[in-house]
Formats: sequence, structure tokens, C-alpha cells
Amino acid sequence: VWVHVNGRLVEETEATVSVFGRGFLYGDGIFESLRAIGGGIFRLDRHLDRLRRSAARIALEGLPDGGRLGAAIRDLIARNRLVDARIRITVTRGSGRPGDYAGAAGDPTLVIYAAPFQPLDPAVRERGVAVTLSSVRQVPADVLDPAVKSISRLSAVLARREAVARGAFEAILLDAGGHLTEGTVSNLFLVDAGRIRTPPAPGVGLPGVTREAVLEIAAGAGLQASEEPLPVSALDSAGELFLTNTSWEVLPVTRVDGRPVGAGVPGPVTLRLARDFRDLMRRECVHA
Amino acid sequence: VWVHVNGRLVEETEATVSVFGRGFLYGDGIFESLRAIGGGIFRLDRHLDRLRRSAARIALEGLPDGGRLGAAIRDLIARNRLVDARIRITVTRGSGRPGDYAGAAGDPTLVIYAAPFQPLDPAVRERGVAVTLSSVRQVPADVLDPAVKSISRLSAVLARREAVARGAFEAILLDAGGHLTEGTVSNLFLVDAGRIRTPPAPGVGLPGVTREAVLEIAAGAGLQASEEPLPVSALDSAGELFLTNTSWEVLPVTRVDGRPVGAGVPGPVTLRLARDFRDLMRRECVHA
Repeated sequence: VWVHVNGRLVEETEATVSVFGRGFLYGDGIFESLRAIGGGIFRLDRHLDRLRRSAARIALEGLPDGGRLGAAIRDLIARNRLVDARIRITVTRGSGRPGDYAGAAGDPTLVIYAAPFQPLDPAVRERGVAVTLSSVRQVPADVLDPAVKSISRLSAVLARREAVARGAFEAILLDAGGHLTEGTVSNLFLVDAGRIRTPPAPGVGLPGVTREAVLEIAAGAGLQASEEPLPVSALDSAGELFLTNTSWEVLPVTRVDGRPVGAGVPGPVTLRLARDFRDLMRRECVHA
Repeated sequence: VWVHVNGRLVEETEATVSVFGRGFLYGDGIFESLRAIGGGIFRLDRHLDRLRRSAARIALEGLPDGGRLGAAIRDLIARNRLVDARIRITVTRGSGRPGDYAGAAGDPTLVIYAAPFQPLDPAVRERGVAVTLSSVRQVPADVLDPAVKSISRLSAVLARREAVARGAFEAILLDAGGHLTEGTVSNLFLVDAGRIRTPPAPGVGLPGVTREAVLEIAAGAGLQASEEPLPVSALDSAGELFLTNTSWEVLPVTRVDGRPVGAGVPGPVTLRLARDFRDLMRRECVHA
């Protein structure tokens, strides 16, 4: 597997960054996770727009323009002979010196990774997954804007590890007011009496690209869908629950801390959105 | 300058870590900043204790024992022919794969950096520094334990950059309840009618090694000192204000967002603690 590091393609074992990089020193960087399907990249422009907004929100300067980033991703996919790929772009605020939090940093460091996409086990998808309400709270907006997809993710790592220790697939984070926000790497939706609801993003969570596509699909299908603050008690009355992200697509949740969601099996709205989202991805990527 | 990377001493340009390291991917690691003075390391055991506590709190396994870490630091100082040095130990949760937040990671990655100590300009110390009340809030304890000195520090980076943009030297972070917590890289003390006060740590901030030494000095000198929750309004009545950290030692603060603290010059309690702390450092390090 070749990896793009600052304009060069290098082998995986040579893919390194300086220990003086501000990514390694301070988590001072941002990333995006993307997918290629049938050789086409799903909503590349939306991901690059979000990367640019993340950069602007933390005043990270010197990001290459979208055309160059897109070309670099396509080159990497071609070099690695990939068709269905998982891609990660990481951009950090260049190099510094330990202790110099605010210092100038020179050019940003750019790393792009692309490897064969590893789909979820179909049995997991059919059965639906378990989630846990995390003991870790969502990072408040006045600490760090949740629309910044930053690499300072230790609290999410700890939430995810706690979830795995509890036998769950993902952790759901509440905010300080007890409202649902998102998962550690996913957006959260619930379906209540046919109505699709998700917490506002940007606002309390990351505005996911898959999340946005699901809202488009719902609107196009005439399904009622809204972004609104959701107290944790909304989980109790929800008939269906699902997660979205680039890798998981639309993933049914059938248990919350051991209690079944609705009938304990993936519900009809979730299954329809999962199918329609997959169709949309293939349509946009493979026939593009 | 030689750098320690996973048991090997390498030149600075060769000091790299994998882009698959969980430090670079997720900020999944911890660090300590230490000083050598006259060849001796100031309170090495306290720093290594704190590193071990940070590791335990994030369940980072495989940290080398204190004896091996201490020997590695001493070797590095000797190899770099340093007498007065700034040292940083960084430990991350080894390597992973993008997307695998909770995955096993193998051995941790250990990086130790030691370079000549760059003291503050004495004129800055004599005049005292300006601080700003940050628009960035302290990371709440239910998001990430503030006693964990983690490398997921983007919010602190942004606070520090804001401070510099406002012409201040350091940012003071409030918690969600409007209480003083700490600076981005320092602990905060105030002196009010002869009483020394600092926010509780662990609790709302990092239990700094310099902070602890200052509390010892105060107790030994019969000065009244307490750890207590301090509303932001405590700044208005404080006659003196100072910051502590390993590099800055006891650093007088003479302005808060443009307003003078007390008489606008370093106060007598601050100056005494600064002198006593410096004496303590030299006594413990040089004559050890």
C-alpha cells in the first residue's frame, strides 16, 4: 500500500511524520474519512468543503485547493489499484517545537491513506448493533466547535473503548444538558411514529456527509424528517434507531444498553433508507 | 540534537513516527514536560508518577517502568551534552488503523526530546505578563479528566492562539460555571490580602509539579495557602496573580485583559515565591 505524505507517495513502512509535527505534539490537525465505490469517490466535494471549513475554524492555513487534493486522492487510488476503498486525509498545522503552542508552523503536513474497503459483516448489519449511553460527555461547543473534525479525539477514543468493554458497537454521547448528540464516529437518527429525527448539526454534532444524504433521501421520498434537540428520553419512545457514517452507511441499532429498540429488529424506515442510500452511493459513484 | 524514539537515539531529522500511530490519528497519548538544571532533573519522580497516572486513567498499557524511563532521559541528556535542558516525554497508544478507535495497538510509542533550556527574557519576568480570559472553556471533567496530560490539546492551542492575537502571554480558562481553572500550559494562583489561593487540582485542572512545590514552599514559610473554587470575580480583588509551570517557574501576571493587577507590578508574595522556588530547584537539582 502506498501512502501520500506531503506530495510524495511512499511505502507504508516509510509513511512517517516528524515527532515535532503539531499533530503528534498537540493533536493540532483535522481529518476526513471518505470512500471510493467502483472507483468513484462518494461526494468528494462535500468532504473537501468540510475539510476546508474545519481548517478555517481552527485557522489552519496553507491547505492545498480542492482540485489538488482531489487529484492526489485519485492518484493514490490508482497507484494502489483500488476500486472500493477507505480513504483518510489528515492535515496538521506543520511542525513546531515542544512548548510553543501558538508558534508559527510553516506549511501544513498532509497525509492521505487509501486501502481496500472492509465492509461490515452482513450478519451484523442484518441483526443491527448494540449501543451504550456513554459515561463520556460530548465536547461542548465552547470548548471546541463540534463541526471541526479534529484529530484531538482522546475523549472519543475513551468512549469507544468503554462501549466495546460493555459489549456495544458504538457509544452515544450526551451533552451536559442530557440531550442526545452523536456517536464517537457516527451520527444518530431515530424514527418515532414514522417521523425521522436527528440532533442538529452543526450545533451539537458533526454534519456528516452520510447524514446529509439520508436527509435528502427522506425529503425526496416524502418522509417526515427533522433536525431537533432530542432529550435522552426520546430513545425510549423511538421505534427505530440507526447510525450513519461513511463506512457503516445506514446501520440499524437494535439494542441500547441491553434494552431492545422497538421490536428488537431493524425497522422498515431504517431498512428503506439503508437500501436507498446504497443505491444513491452506487448511482453517484459507479455511473459518474 | 539526538532524539529518543522507541529505544533508539536518532538524529532530529530522523525522529519520526508512523502515520498509523494513534498519536497522529487520534491524539491518543500523553506527555510530560520536565527540566534539567545543572545536570539534575527537577522532581523526575513526580513527573513519572503523573505520567503513570495519566496512562492508567486512559488505560494505556505497556509504559516502561520509572527506572527505565529515568535512565533513558539521563542517557539522552548526556548524549546531547546538556546541562540546563527542556525535556518532553510523549507516549502514545502504539499503532492502529484509521477508523479503528478501540482496537488493540501493540506496544506504546515512546519519544523523548531534550534540548537546551531557553529561559524567558528576564525583562518579561521583571515586568510580569498579561493574560486574557479566554473565549475557550476548560474541557469538563466528564469529557476528559483534567488530570490526564494528553496530547489531544487542540482547544488549548486555539485558546493560546487567541491570547497571542490579543497581545497576551497566556490564556486563562473558565469552566462552564464561570470558575477559574488554569492556563493552557500553566497553573494559576492569586494572592488576596496575603492569602495564596489556587483552584483545586486534580479537580478543575492539572496538578502541576511546580504548583505542588509552590504550595510546599508556602506551607514551609508559614504563608496561608489554600486550594478552593474561585469565581472569575476573584480576579478583581486579587492584589497579585501568578502562573506556574516547569519552564516559567513562578511568573508574575500584571495585567488581565488590559486592566492592571493590584499596583500593576509583580507583588511581594509572588516575588518571594519565585525566589524561593528557584532556590528549591537549584538545591534539589544541582546539589543532588
